[in-house]
Amino acid sequence: MRIENPRYTERFGSVRVNDVQKVLELDSGRAKEIPLQENIAVQKIEEDTIKDIEEKMAIVIPTKDEKLKLFEGVIRGVPHECLIIVVSNSQRKPVDRFRMEQDAIKQFCHFTHHQALIIHQKDPILAQAVAEAGYTDLLDEDERVRDGKAEGMVAAMLIAIMANKDYVGFVDADNYFPGAVWEYAKCYAAGFSMAKSPYAMVRILWHYKPKISAGMYFKKWGRVSETTNKCMNSLISTKTGFETDVIKTGNAGEHAMSLRLAEILPYASGYAIEPQELVSILEGFGGVLPVAHQTVAKHGVEVLQIETLNPHLHEEKGLDHLKGMLLPGLGAVYHTPLCDAETKQLILGELQQQDAIKPDEEPPKPHISAPPKKVNRQKFAEVIKEHLDSYSALEKK
Amino acid sequence: MRIENPRYTERFGSVRVNDVQKVLELDSGRAKEIPLQENIAVQKIEEDTIKDIEEKMAIVIPTKDEKLKLFEGVIRGVPHECLIIVVSNSQRKPVDRFRMEQDAIKQFCHFTHHQALIIHQKDPILAQAVAEAGYTDLLDEDERVRDGKAEGMVAAMLIAIMANKDYVGFVDADNYFPGAVWEYAKCYAAGFSMAKSPYAMVRILWHYKPKISAGMYFKKWGRVSETTNKCMNSLISTKTGFETDVIKTGNAGEHAMSLRLAEILPYASGYAIEPQELVSILEGFGGVLPVAHQTVAKHGVEVLQIETLNPHLHEEKGLDHLKGMLLPGLGAVYHTPLCDAETKQLILGELQQQDAIKPDEEPPKPHISAPPKKVNRQKFAEVIKEHLDSYSALEKK
Repeated sequence: MRIENPRYTERFGSVRVNDVQKVLELDSGRAKEIPLQENIAVQKIEEDTIKDIEEKMAIVIPTKDEKLKLFEGVIRGVPHECLIIVVSNSQRKPVDRFRMEQDAIKQFCHFTHHQALIIHQKDPILAQAVAEAGYTDLLDEDERVRDGKAEGMVAAMLIAIMANKDYVGFVDADNYFPGAVWEYAKCYAAGFSMAKSPYAMVRILWHYKPKISAGMYFKKWGRVSETTNKCMNSLISTKTGFETDVIKTGNAGEHAMSLRLAEILPYASGYAIEPQELVSILEGFGGVLPVAHQTVAKHGVEVLQIETLNPHLHEEKGLDHLKGMLLPGLGAVYHTPLCDAETKQLILGELQQQDAIKPDEEPPKPHISAPPKKVNRQKFAEVIKEHLDSYSALEKK
Repeated sequence: MRIENPRYTERFGSVRVNDVQKVLELDSGRAKEIPLQENIAVQKIEEDTIKDIEEKMAIVIPTKDEKLKLFEGVIRGVPHECLIIVVSNSQRKPVDRFRMEQDAIKQFCHFTHHQALIIHQKDPILAQAVAEAGYTDLLDEDERVRDGKAEGMVAAMLIAIMANKDYVGFVDADNYFPGAVWEYAKCYAAGFSMAKSPYAMVRILWHYKPKISAGMYFKKWGRVSETTNKCMNSLISTKTGFETDVIKTGNAGEHAMSLRLAEILPYASGYAIEPQELVSILEGFGGVLPVAHQTVAKHGVEVLQIETLNPHLHEEKGLDHLKGMLLPGLGAVYHTPLCDAETKQLILGELQQQDAIKPDEEPPKPHISAPPKKVNRQKFAEVIKEHLDSYSALEKK
């Protein structure tokens, strides 16, 4: 893979947010004995470097009643070295869609030897493991893991830690192009190989997101992303006193973290999770509020934003879904102690203009779960490991 | 890449047509010191094997006034080891679109060191080279290379031979997904690595071809492909006496050949080129007509059909374009001496039903150019080589 070097970095306390880096060539060929002298603006990430990181990376696919054909395509696009972790909240009755997903991934693993785990979000063992770890934030009143993509993602992080991985990457299950999934994983690995801090996050910016309505129109930004980015940039600008537009991936569902970073972040529920991650980083390490972890601050936290070559083509979830994403995302920005009056006003204005709140309303405060590091991950691992075979999609010979 | 083994092979004289093989996993990971025992139905093609073939492969991109963004995406998807050959018939006036393509590919090569050639189909030097080689079939009354994608493809094959490549693969410039282009090249290489004969052809079957009309509908077969395949299968079935549906890629624009095969085939003009390639193979080596080359017949000619994981999403060229593809393709099948009365009747029926011909008409007979081997490729190479620098998109340092 050939990729641009970051050309600009915004510093906020010990947080470094790199401006967007574009993928220039999907497949940059063999490692040469005498490496070519690359242009100062370009980096070639060797296949071996990428695979070294992939071996230490879990790709998490949260899913809920997704079309099986899409789900199958997505798992087939994940590079072989990555452990796949599917956390499914699909229905069990009247049609057992979870069972269909299990069958599909088992068939895939049978023919490819790919390592994969699949677990239902309402699995009683999972709930027990979460409870024994003391992670009550994740549980509902029935003592099961709460509904929602965010909770599934956090559970998957605990599993990735248990599996001794160093990185975790997220990929949505509704992607039409296996080749795009493949590129996300490569971008994650390339990003981590470029990061200077072990506390790193890679967020994906889609080259284009085709809009299908009487032909194709290639939008660069969705309305939701545009608004979220604007408000986050306002948050940073008012603190630093210099206007910035560095945040271009505020809502990025496709993103990855080193587990050393992932385990120290608190997580929001629902669609606030991705914007909240950035907010939490700025809170914990931006130097405005008390520093969350001294050692981490010494290394710094690095956010990379990578623009893919492939456009992003996924299931259209409709306008309601978009509003459903806007409100919680801006809620995360609105309710951080970092948020100044000016940015609050901006958020309220945007939400009112888009009919997402009434004039006297505020966006909801996100439900926040404690960082995984605060819970007993050892206990979690003990419970899960005992039942690991039943979650593995690859049968032992 | 993990791919199915061919499960069925139709034999027709010394031609072997393999049934469709599906890609199971885009990225099958590192070569293991102790290779896993693969399932009997599956083959893992190691990255090194693929790259060895890519180094010997030219990827030809014929283009004509294509959207520049799509063209740029397509070249960025080609694996680094493959030589890119762009043959463009884009307009020069009033806007010099060819110049824009040149600029785009030069910029790409500058940053990636990718080897690429770009040449205009109406280039006077190209015409001179074709003329000196004695390839008059390719020239129009103005002594320039004839218009049409097919003529551009044949000229590109001569350039690939000049560049000492062993394989040539074709990719259309109107593809929305760089990742799909990448997969085509991998499939070509995987196919050649599996072929038992040095005279081999790989034809791509798209997993799905999304139809965009009030949402997405994933069609497996276009109407044109369905009809062409049916008529070709009828041609084979009536000769062997056993009905077959082995041909599933009669119209495949995405296909590749070993140059040893490519240089001995005659080529049809226009959209007949891809179906005619199959017809020419059946004519030359099917054992019904006199064998074209004894040595080749000894090795056999092998046709592989590979189904990609990625769907195929390209510019919609409209219904007229589809009819424009159907007629010449069926013309190729209709006018071969192999074609029996029954298949002729089938073709006429299909064409009438689809309003492509009137009741008393026949499909047009394709204009056929001699096989490249019949012309003086040495002369061609001498002329081109002298001007090679002006076609290279990668500047010398």
